[in-house]
Formats: sequence, C-alpha cells, structure tokens
Amino acid sequence: MAKKDVALPVIRRLPRYYRFVSALLAEGIERISSKELSLRMGLTASQIRQDLNCFGGFGQQGYGYNLKGLKDEIGKILGIDKKIKMVLVGAGNIGRALGTRVDFNSVGFELVAIFDNSEDVVGKEIGGLSVKSADELNDYCSQNGIEAAVVCVPDSSAKEVVDSLVSLGVKIFWNFTGYDILFNHKDMELSVENVHLNDSLMTLRYLAN
Amino acid sequence: MAKKDVALPVIRRLPRYYRFVSALLAEGIERISSKELSLRMGLTASQIRQDLNCFGGFGQQGYGYNLKGLKDEIGKILGIDKKIKMVLVGAGNIGRALGTRVDFNSVGFELVAIFDNSEDVVGKEIGGLSVKSADELNDYCSQNGIEAAVVCVPDSSAKEVVDSLVSLGVKIFWNFTGYDILFNHKDMELSVENVHLNDSLMTLRYLAN
Repeated sequence: MAKKDVALPVIRRLPRYYRFVSALLAEGIERISSKELSLRMGLTASQIRQDLNCFGGFGQQGYGYNLKGLKDEIGKILGIDKKIKMVLVGAGNIGRALGTRVDFNSVGFELVAIFDNSEDVVGKEIGGLSVKSADELNDYCSQNGIEAAVVCVPDSSAKEVVDSLVSLGVKIFWNFTGYDILFNHKDMELSVENVHLNDSLMTLRYLAN
Repeated sequence: MAKKDVALPVIRRLPRYYRFVSALLAEGIERISSKELSLRMGLTASQIRQDLNCFGGFGQQGYGYNLKGLKDEIGKILGIDKKIKMVLVGAGNIGRALGTRVDFNSVGFELVAIFDNSEDVVGKEIGGLSVKSADELNDYCSQNGIEAAVVCVPDSSAKEVVDSLVSLGVKIFWNFTGYDILFNHKDMELSVENVHLNDSLMTLRYLAN
C-alpha cells in the first residue's frame, strides 16, 4: 500500500506499535491477542485490528498476533531496514541530547556528522562523532550526497541553515526549530517531521484542566 | 465544552492554532479567513472551521477570524492563563535544553525547581534556577504541594522517580522517558504527555520512503 493511501494518524501509531511489540518480545512474549495488546497500549481492540489491517493485517483469527512477524513487518513498512545518512546541525543542549540519546540506527538513519558554529564546541565528541565546524557543512553535504538533516540551531538562524541545506539537495528534515520548512518550500517534495516541544507542553496544560 | 467531549486530535491541533495565530499577530495581521489560515497551516479550510466550531467558533461569516480574540480564547481553553507549579527532574542534556529553551510561563506552567542526583550538576544554574540535589526532591514536593513534573531521568531510574512522585501527589507528567506512566498507574487520575523522540524519527523515516 502506498504511503499516500494511509492516514497520518495511523502512520503516527506505527512507531508506537513497534515500540510496544519490541518491549513485549524483550519480555519473552511471542504471541498476543488484540484484546491484550489493546489493554497494554490504551487503544481499543477494534482500533488495533483496523490499524494493522491498513497494512495487510498480521493476525490469525483465534491465534492473535505473532509478535516477531509483526515487528519485522512494521519495521519494513517504516523502512527502518534501509539506513539513510543524516547530519545534525546545532550541537547545543538539544543537539547533544539527540546525538547521545537517540538510537538513529534502530529507526533507519545513520548519523554521520555533527556541525556547530561555536569554537567551544567544534572538536568535542558527541555520541562517538567529533563536532565539525559549520563552515564545512555545505561541502560535506554536497560531497557525501546527504539527504537528511536534524536541525536544532536557534530559531534566529534556522531559515538560513535550512534554506541552504534544501539548495544542496537535503530533502528530509527532523526539525526542532520554529521555522516552517514546508510552508517556505512548497515547490519542493520535502519530508519534514517537526518536534514542537511547546505544543506538547501546551497539550499537557490542557489535559491538566 | 468539557475536555472529555473533544477528540484528542482536535486538542492536539489547538497549540498549533495558538502558535500560528500568535505568529500572524506578531506580523501585524489582525484578521484572517479560514481559507488563508488553511494555506498557512497546511490544513483544509473546512477542517479549520470544524475544529474551531468544536469550541464555539470564533469566526464571522464573510469577515474571517479576529486573531486577537481567537488567541485569547484558545489560551483560555488550553488553560494557560492559570499557572501550575512544575519541577524538572534530571538535569542531563535534555533537562538542560528544556530548562533553558522552553518558555514554561507562556504555556501555563511555572518551573520552580530543578533536581539532579549528580554532584557535578547540583548547584549549577539552568534557566535562572540553581539545581538542587535529588535527595531534596520528595520533601520539596510535599512542602510545596507540587502537582506537575517534567521527567527526563535515564530510563533505568524512571520507574523509581515517577512512582515516588505519584505517591507524593504529583498528577501531571511531561514524560521524556520510556516508562509507561499511565499503564503503571491505572488506578490514578493522571495527566501524562509523553515525548517519544524515537517515534518521531521513525515517522520521519516512513515519510522519507
């Protein structure tokens, strides 16, 4: 099924399925009913059946889901078996946190270089990579055919950094800035995932009412 | 309208409306049609009308939306005019990034204290607050009637930290760990917003296919 045919809310739940299924496998559980999975995930059983049917369905009536098969299939659908090279731009607190805490490989990316414009940070090591100077960013991307970038620079320089990356052929952005990449590059076919921490905290404020 | 009556996907779009409306006001724009707002936000105009109608609607046929009024109303619905005291636990890279970059006040929280269990970090300043020792966490929460916490400790200590906070009366969690707070405290009425960075990056990997 082509990605355009699947609704984004379903897609957004796939990583969650993947996470829960991986955790269950790590506990030694090999098979689970949609009922049990629903209790675990806080979704309804019918929601789960409906979601997984969007991708062909992996359950057998009366036998439940084979977790190993389900994990492999979701992984294939997400594309995490094929790694895309990615650079990280901006090695401030967020950048350092991402570089050290996020397991890029397990989700289909390979973090190949980190850039920052501060003398104090260039040369320091983050997650096994030595931070390069921002001056080298453009050359590095061109020479290595980089298509994906994590952007965690301050908002004030986001436009400059992103627009330059787009002109160099970067098409896949994990965006931690407030810059609206898609709106400003409507003519390009970009894949953008925005992480708006403020939005997340505002949602929590609403839930707390 | 009670919060239980509004679907979570609509709620999740409210911070986004608030963000776009604030940005438009900052540009000096006071009024906008649902058509223009939809182009800006990448939603359909009918989606926007439907969403805002969930909360009573703020548009006038033929006149578009009054942005100042819309911003105030969304702010009230989200509850950001009333501040809830919040502590942050775990002053590693993520914790430092949140403490310095997130504007808690603008989204209805007041960050009142930061805790860490590392000697190297206790006493350091983050976002105007001096990091306290994790040993003081429980007393501080009890004495100050704390109800909300940001949890960005390593996954290995998440259960211990969260369960102890729950027993002290904390009910509102902004959770950056992999610990499933709601599943493990089904008997409590907690408000939890999870930030799963891995899930976000997996979604990007899917979009990039």
